[in-house]
Amino acid sequence: MTDIDQLAISTIRLLAVDMVGKANSGHPGAPLGLAPAAHALFKQMKFNPRNPNWINRDRFVLSNGHACALLYSMLHLYGYGLTLDDLKEFRQLNSKTPGHPEMHDTPGVEVTSGPLGQGISNAVGMAIAQKQFAATYNKEDFVISDNYTYVFLGDGCLMEGVSSEASSLAGHLKLNNLIAFWDDNKISIDGSTNVAFTEDVIKRYHAYGWNTLEISHGDTDLDGVAKAIEQAKASDKPTLIRLTTTIGFGSLQAGTHGVHGAPLKADDIKQLKEKFGFNPEETFKVPPEVYEDYAKHVKANQEIEAKWYQTFNEYKAKYPTEGAELARRLDGKLPENWTEALPTYTPEDKPLATRKLSEMLLSSVFPKVPELIGGSADLTGSNLTKAANSVDFQDPSTKLGDYSGRYIRYGVREHGMGAIMNGIAAFGANYKNYGGTFLNFVSYAAGAVRLSALSHLPVTWVATHDSIGLGEDGPTHQPIETLAHLRAIPNLSVWRPADGNEVSAAYKSAIESTSTPHVIALTRQNLPQLEGSSIEAASKGGYTLVKAENPDIIIVASGSEVSLSVNAAKVLGEQGFKVSVVSMPDFLTFDKQPQSYRLSVLPDGVPILSVEVMSSFGWSKYSHEQFGLNRFGASGKADDLFKFFEFTPEGVSERAAKTIQFYKGKPILSPLNRAF
Amino acid sequence: MTDIDQLAISTIRLLAVDMVGKANSGHPGAPLGLAPAAHALFKQMKFNPRNPNWINRDRFVLSNGHACALLYSMLHLYGYGLTLDDLKEFRQLNSKTPGHPEMHDTPGVEVTSGPLGQGISNAVGMAIAQKQFAATYNKEDFVISDNYTYVFLGDGCLMEGVSSEASSLAGHLKLNNLIAFWDDNKISIDGSTNVAFTEDVIKRYHAYGWNTLEISHGDTDLDGVAKAIEQAKASDKPTLIRLTTTIGFGSLQAGTHGVHGAPLKADDIKQLKEKFGFNPEETFKVPPEVYEDYAKHVKANQEIEAKWYQTFNEYKAKYPTEGAELARRLDGKLPENWTEALPTYTPEDKPLATRKLSEMLLSSVFPKVPELIGGSADLTGSNLTKAANSVDFQDPSTKLGDYSGRYIRYGVREHGMGAIMNGIAAFGANYKNYGGTFLNFVSYAAGAVRLSALSHLPVTWVATHDSIGLGEDGPTHQPIETLAHLRAIPNLSVWRPADGNEVSAAYKSAIESTSTPHVIALTRQNLPQLEGSSIEAASKGGYTLVKAENPDIIIVASGSEVSLSVNAAKVLGEQGFKVSVVSMPDFLTFDKQPQSYRLSVLPDGVPILSVEVMSSFGWSKYSHEQFGLNRFGASGKADDLFKFFEFTPEGVSERAAKTIQFYKGKPILSPLNRAF
Repeated sequence: MTDIDQLAISTIRLLAVDMVGKANSGHPGAPLGLAPAAHALFKQMKFNPRNPNWINRDRFVLSNGHACALLYSMLHLYGYGLTLDDLKEFRQLNSKTPGHPEMHDTPGVEVTSGPLGQGISNAVGMAIAQKQFAATYNKEDFVISDNYTYVFLGDGCLMEGVSSEASSLAGHLKLNNLIAFWDDNKISIDGSTNVAFTEDVIKRYHAYGWNTLEISHGDTDLDGVAKAIEQAKASDKPTLIRLTTTIGFGSLQAGTHGVHGAPLKADDIKQLKEKFGFNPEETFKVPPEVYEDYAKHVKANQEIEAKWYQTFNEYKAKYPTEGAELARRLDGKLPENWTEALPTYTPEDKPLATRKLSEMLLSSVFPKVPELIGGSADLTGSNLTKAANSVDFQDPSTKLGDYSGRYIRYGVREHGMGAIMNGIAAFGANYKNYGGTFLNFVSYAAGAVRLSALSHLPVTWVATHDSIGLGEDGPTHQPIETLAHLRAIPNLSVWRPADGNEVSAAYKSAIESTSTPHVIALTRQNLPQLEGSSIEAASKGGYTLVKAENPDIIIVASGSEVSLSVNAAKVLGEQGFKVSVVSMPDFLTFDKQPQSYRLSVLPDGVPILSVEVMSSFGWSKYSHEQFGLNRFGASGKADDLFKFFEFTPEGVSERAAKTIQFYKGKPILSPLNRAF
Repeated sequence: MTDIDQLAISTIRLLAVDMVGKANSGHPGAPLGLAPAAHALFKQMKFNPRNPNWINRDRFVLSNGHACALLYSMLHLYGYGLTLDDLKEFRQLNSKTPGHPEMHDTPGVEVTSGPLGQGISNAVGMAIAQKQFAATYNKEDFVISDNYTYVFLGDGCLMEGVSSEASSLAGHLKLNNLIAFWDDNKISIDGSTNVAFTEDVIKRYHAYGWNTLEISHGDTDLDGVAKAIEQAKASDKPTLIRLTTTIGFGSLQAGTHGVHGAPLKADDIKQLKEKFGFNPEETFKVPPEVYEDYAKHVKANQEIEAKWYQTFNEYKAKYPTEGAELARRLDGKLPENWTEALPTYTPEDKPLATRKLSEMLLSSVFPKVPELIGGSADLTGSNLTKAANSVDFQDPSTKLGDYSGRYIRYGVREHGMGAIMNGIAAFGANYKNYGGTFLNFVSYAAGAVRLSALSHLPVTWVATHDSIGLGEDGPTHQPIETLAHLRAIPNLSVWRPADGNEVSAAYKSAIESTSTPHVIALTRQNLPQLEGSSIEAASKGGYTLVKAENPDIIIVASGSEVSLSVNAAKVLGEQGFKVSVVSMPDFLTFDKQPQSYRLSVLPDGVPILSVEVMSSFGWSKYSHEQFGLNRFGASGKADDLFKFFEFTPEGVSERAAKTIQFYKGKPILSPLNRAF
């Protein structure tokens, strides 16, 4: 280790310590332990802090996101636009340096991490995207994409099941563009990892098909890091490097969990600065030669980046079709007129399950939108997520597909799939990616779903079997609370289309989205094509499907309950009632419409009944009365279940009649009219 | 294999085929493949079908729950009270033979399975419970508990992260009372497991610290099963047995995924019955000698069971204290007067975080309730879940605790913890078990939480850091949608206590519960002890804390927003408004009160404003206007965040004043008054 290396590492460590100290909150232990590895790793990476979205940059993912003081120090020293003042605002409201890294707020932060196990799984997604991107655009004479994805992860990440799922898939897919450093510091919050985590991690990753390496002296062995990266790059597998470090290196509490999640005491900081040759009276000190050292690396990297843009220009000249497509994608634009591929339907078209309509749409859109890639968590034949003629994304030696394939076999790994989808979206290049499972099992991935929304990643869940309509599989598989759960997540579009036109509207919203993830809930059972639906109308999130003049009641419904409500309206009509029916495929989109439009759909003066065959929780936002299923479902034929739970035209019309009666003579405010 | 073995196995297979055939729905593949192993395994098990809750029975968990036609066949043949007519009602509404096994409906079904990865993880919990139970009550001269937990699991279960988490912990804990058979049939729904699952499972389990065995000819090798069980019982580790089988054995589609999840065709059933020497014209055929064969085994088992009860009687005589405790627990009764250990508070007591109040309660209750056991997903010092002087549940050779310990170090494994908690509760013996994590990370375990509720398992989540009040960790850790999600789950009690008395009410509800799981959401920050709170009042789920005569408004709140609302009421009082404040710690409990009581709390004629610092989704069930946080939080000091989001007495009172103004002169219906 040279003097400048030592100085840089001490600077990183003390910046982190000062950040945590000034905030009086945060995690000093991991930054102190990982500073040498970060210093050595960044020296091996290609990236340009002035152009943090350069598509061929190496990615760095801090899966143990609580160590973010380390990451912010690196980003500052490399000139990513985080100032010393930003570091001083660590963990303060509205700063660029929040308590865990947030990708949408801080340039250089590749993914939002902190919830353990997510970052490493995102990285698997980034590595998948890179492989797919390279296989699609590289030519024998042009390398457009060859970047690596590097990860730091801790014991906590390794204990989480989501990382097991993603890592097993990464091994299967032979993602040798993925290089992960396990910070083996033997400490987690409950103390020694001996209390709960004594498995042989290296053997486990070997079992997954990873290349595994060890660096025994991670506190000092910078060459070891460089050498391990070299060996990892030579492997045909993803690599896990066991990096043995001392948590809280240099602190009086080094090697204990006391240094994990609490600021160091004043005397500890003092001795630490003295030990590292820094003035204990100074804080946030960066010796100029440290800036210079990193600037040299940036300069060299900028040349690499400039050369890449030159290559890209030559590529565009030689391969105008691919070049134009690539340029378009890097601009974040979809193909012109792609929406022409969206199917439309009329009531004369035959009834179909919305999952089937989704499959037909995918088959139509897939060839036109090369950035659309998808998969399923081992439910392809049930989710109907595979576009006709699509190729599997697989290591070509398996003969099952190749890396340019756009259909991913996720295996039964919903949470891993969710986190991988986030990684694919975070890679850039306009990737629009979706994953299929049963709606009920999106819950397995809840940790990843909320991060999609928080991180503004436009991924899409194709969530079939969306109600008791799935029938015999029974209550273990029938969603009840799921839509309430998902609708309560900020910035998540939760579509439940009622027919083919609404399926097209849902996908249009999903594919055009740049910052809002989508869930599209689809039926197993057939639904009729509705009179009055259209892509345009459904694109408002909610609209009047059946319009009565001066209605006695408005029934608002989603998905399979829309046609049911139309039938109920007919029954009510025979009884002399005037009934409007509103289809509400997506709350979030509806909420974004002007209040005047929304009040035209759900006006004052009319009682509103919502109908949805699952938990009615939350529907009182749009309705005065709710007909839902506030219990678990049952195993039985779908038709029997709908009858048993009275989700029939008669069951709905009876409740509608009671609603009309109840509100008769009472002044009625629309639920959309609010006091504030 | 003897003739009777062969006949029994064919009978099991054909019952399963006939069940799926009659239902025209279900999964014939795994039952056909696993019938020999099931036949051989049950012969090794001790259980009494007439007394399915006998505490020392061996447990059998079908983790690949879709194979339940196999399980129902076994339960029928062994005389568990499933008749042939029940089998004929397979997958029909309100039958005892639903599409996936449901423990609360069908005697002999140990856990509800189907959502993959859960059963094996439940089994880890059952094995933990057995170890704890045995270590607590066995004596040198008395074996009260020595049962084993057996599991069948498929590739899907192995791919799920939840099983990785639980299996890693099982290895750490050396649960040698757990014996799992991996149905290695190389097929999942997407086809060959080669498309997504090529890891070395045996090596992975070895890495977890399991004993691993292989049975290469699982279609025929009954002795292999018996021998493997013998070897497993001799191990000091949990055992995974790789059992190679042919999915859909005997079918024309054997070995393909075509046989996994769809009924066999008529000609296939015909050739299958002929192949097995059965009359193809007959269905649901059980040769009498098969019943007789199983009856012999039952008879031998009943003697074992009778002997156990004799032992238990001798035990009660020799160890009256333990014997009485044991008898009480087996009766499902809590210790007399245990509620005297619940702390109570007055407004003079100092402000404390509800997580701290929870710790004090646990320390007080723990010594009095021996069936109370708990743990944390590596957040002990943050969740404050460890009762004073409690001992860790650990393999004693670690010197970190012993098997009679009642505190479980789960590691960073929330989903695994949730499924293990379900298993501990399913074991019986009145176990009341809880697990701690941050409220936000209960979401990681959503798959297990909904199964607790569906299965009526009274487990408890101690969910601390319940809002933006956690401060600097930021939006990755701050729950927004979480309470809406959990409250929408049927049969889940979701408590958010506002002070010490309400914490006691929450735990009283949780510990007394026999069929409803609980989540107790607790603050990181201090809250005052409220004037007007009591265990009794809070035990109604919602109650009037501050009562104004003819109020201008009612503010209803939970947790940390109750004292905030009391302060807002004071501000409003200074402005001349009369304000009642309702504390609503648990929706589900409140919903169970008589309508007259509920209307006395939330009456007609008064505008109601709810205040809760997270998604307001669902609160319109109880309020006309909602003040919530319908966006992600932020990283910063808790006080700064509450101010920024205007959750201050002024912010609340301003919205209350607007609400009063808005509803002035309008007739107001309580949201509890419904049309139907």
